[in-house]
Amino acid sequence: MTIQVTAFHWVPPFAQGYVRDLRVRWALEEAGLPYEATLVDQQVRASESYRKWQPFRQVPAYKDDTVELFESGAIVLHIAANCDVLAPRDAAGWARTTSWVFAALNSIEPHVQNFVQLQESRARVEPVLNARLTALAAWLGGKEYLEDRFTAGDLIMTTVLRELVNSGVLARFPTLDAYRRRCEARPAFGRAMEAQMKPFSEYAPAAS
Amino acid sequence: MTIQVTAFHWVPPFAQGYVRDLRVRWALEEAGLPYEATLVDQQVRASESYRKWQPFRQVPAYKDDTVELFESGAIVLHIAANCDVLAPRDAAGWARTTSWVFAALNSIEPHVQNFVQLQESRARVEPVLNARLTALAAWLGGKEYLEDRFTAGDLIMTTVLRELVNSGVLARFPTLDAYRRRCEARPAFGRAMEAQMKPFSEYAPAAS
Repeated sequence: MTIQVTAFHWVPPFAQGYVRDLRVRWALEEAGLPYEATLVDQQVRASESYRKWQPFRQVPAYKDDTVELFESGAIVLHIAANCDVLAPRDAAGWARTTSWVFAALNSIEPHVQNFVQLQESRARVEPVLNARLTALAAWLGGKEYLEDRFTAGDLIMTTVLRELVNSGVLARFPTLDAYRRRCEARPAFGRAMEAQMKPFSEYAPAAS
Repeated sequence: MTIQVTAFHWVPPFAQGYVRDLRVRWALEEAGLPYEATLVDQQVRASESYRKWQPFRQVPAYKDDTVELFESGAIVLHIAANCDVLAPRDAAGWARTTSWVFAALNSIEPHVQNFVQLQESRARVEPVLNARLTALAAWLGGKEYLEDRFTAGDLIMTTVLRELVNSGVLARFPTLDAYRRRCEARPAFGRAMEAQMKPFSEYAPAAS
């Protein structure tokens, strides 16, 4: 099977290691599936053909022999549907996995992003973010993962929590920070990160 | 099959008709599946047993004979997986459906919510929101739905676009507004809305 994933050929340093193709690369590494990263630059993103693949001209977009899709959450679930490492096979376990993928992206990440990006709104955003992180830490308790094993839900949740590291917020939630580190310690995460970072040095704009 | 969905017993008028159990009710109506709405009040939400069902003490949470899950996106996908009205059965069509469910919740809704909720950030948020809505309108073009038929993606996207009606923003995107109206005209949507609204009058706080 030929798998293609789009990624940016270069992003500014603050975004390096955080572009969302990392989620897909990580999932593919967990699944042991080889893939080809299709690097897209401004010219490709502006093209009609790319818009037909990714309606918002973002990355990642994904293509294999059977399906063509976009949105990191949808792509990771697609990979997880055929991968024992990323999701249990039984209906109940699969349902829990999808719940956590959506929870990471919809109940946690919007508040993370508001906190990180909208400096002027922090006073309004921070209490909600704290409440969500407190609930998440309570759920996790002494468990290693969100459920009784690693799933795609942990994968997506980790990529969301990572966005908070630089702000210092995560240091106030040692349970969550340890959980994030535990997931990031997976060899597949390391390979995904390395793969995302590789083109950035190659395509870095020349210092002027 | 016994299906249980949680909903709030009462919310302030501005939120009535917008609580996220509407998405699940709508999907169940499209699927022709009877369900029982379990109304939760502050006391239930504060309980440990509810936290175990919904880690963030929100609604909706869902339970049937086989699975227990939370997050409206995950629940709607679960219903769609066994419902021809909500998703095509082939792998490629299913993948497109999941892409649009995630697109609605992750590429559109965070910007909608920031625009609606964070008044002080509107100047920063509005250009991104406009760009996303422009891209969505371009995608839709003359089509009736996001793909060549109604899917769970349209269901979720409609519930996201509805959040913008009162702000007047949607009136500037006639393609999207017509699309929203087309989806809201489905009898299943009407039944879902009616079901969400029903307890609100019954449980309305007495005027003081």
